[in-house]
Amino acid sequence: MGKGFIHVYTGNGKGKTTAALGLTLRAICAGKKVYIGQFIKGMKYSELESVKYLPNLAIEQFGRDCFIYRKPQEEDIELARSGLNKCREILKEGEYDLVVLDELNIATYYNLFTVDEVIKVLDERAEHVEVIITGRYADEKIIEIADLVTEMKEIKHYYNKGVEARKGIEI
Amino acid sequence: MGKGFIHVYTGNGKGKTTAALGLTLRAICAGKKVYIGQFIKGMKYSELESVKYLPNLAIEQFGRDCFIYRKPQEEDIELARSGLNKCREILKEGEYDLVVLDELNIATYYNLFTVDEVIKVLDERAEHVEVIITGRYADEKIIEIADLVTEMKEIKHYYNKGVEARKGIEI
Repeated sequence: MGKGFIHVYTGNGKGKTTAALGLTLRAICAGKKVYIGQFIKGMKYSELESVKYLPNLAIEQFGRDCFIYRKPQEEDIELARSGLNKCREILKEGEYDLVVLDELNIATYYNLFTVDEVIKVLDERAEHVEVIITGRYADEKIIEIADLVTEMKEIKHYYNKGVEARKGIEI
Repeated sequence: MGKGFIHVYTGNGKGKTTAALGLTLRAICAGKKVYIGQFIKGMKYSELESVKYLPNLAIEQFGRDCFIYRKPQEEDIELARSGLNKCREILKEGEYDLVVLDELNIATYYNLFTVDEVIKVLDERAEHVEVIITGRYADEKIIEIADLVTEMKEIKHYYNKGVEARKGIEI
């Protein structure tokens, strides 16, 4: 096994978590084990059902949903911090070949934990583990240490026409 | 069922086909049926194994792989055109809730068929069908009719450091 890379999917367009799910599917099809930690999120997104179909997959959530419209509270911070601890163990142990840190960028943007804490967690990972980090507002330090960075740029979105998130497409 | 939207994932960054695969997984988790038509591609990508795990999924390929370094030949054109015919039927029939036209933008960019032919095929689809179109070089007319467009922009890529495509990650 070679060295695992760090991917970052950021920007304001649709497709960041979705790309992480696609990588998950492709990796599992190739016989790899995948762990997805979802920061911020607590809703029962359709993708949580993936474990019913796919082997070698674990998904956990460390949030109570987007607090984008209010200030993060004590409980949000505790959930995120215990999530980061859990991900530290998973990354260090190396049982999972691919680890998705979904919406991690949002967690650092809202100071639920610091970027330096994240970088330490990433540095301590088992060497072969590939990491996917998603979320808007990727910190410069995360972009610096990443091997691959894609910015998902919104050119056009139907949310702007008043369409709400739909089950099986967005959630 | 509401009206199905047209999504476009374009740009030079990693994550376009991958986002389509993620949407596929999410849609299937929500009980939807998904058809993926891969233009240009003919390689045994890991994602072709998805059908082993996921119900309500069909994947077909209409290519012999990237001819990006040479001129498309008669056979490439025939494969792409018969693929478009197949997708026309699938879209019209409406049995599949989500239809992915993977690398379609590359097919029109190389004139394997015209954008106007594609728009006709999309116009004739069953109303509820959601369509995902991927590939670099999305035509202006496709962007015009799309409901959602995300540009995947390469900020950093390890291919530039000489890393080759890896099984379960890129292929």
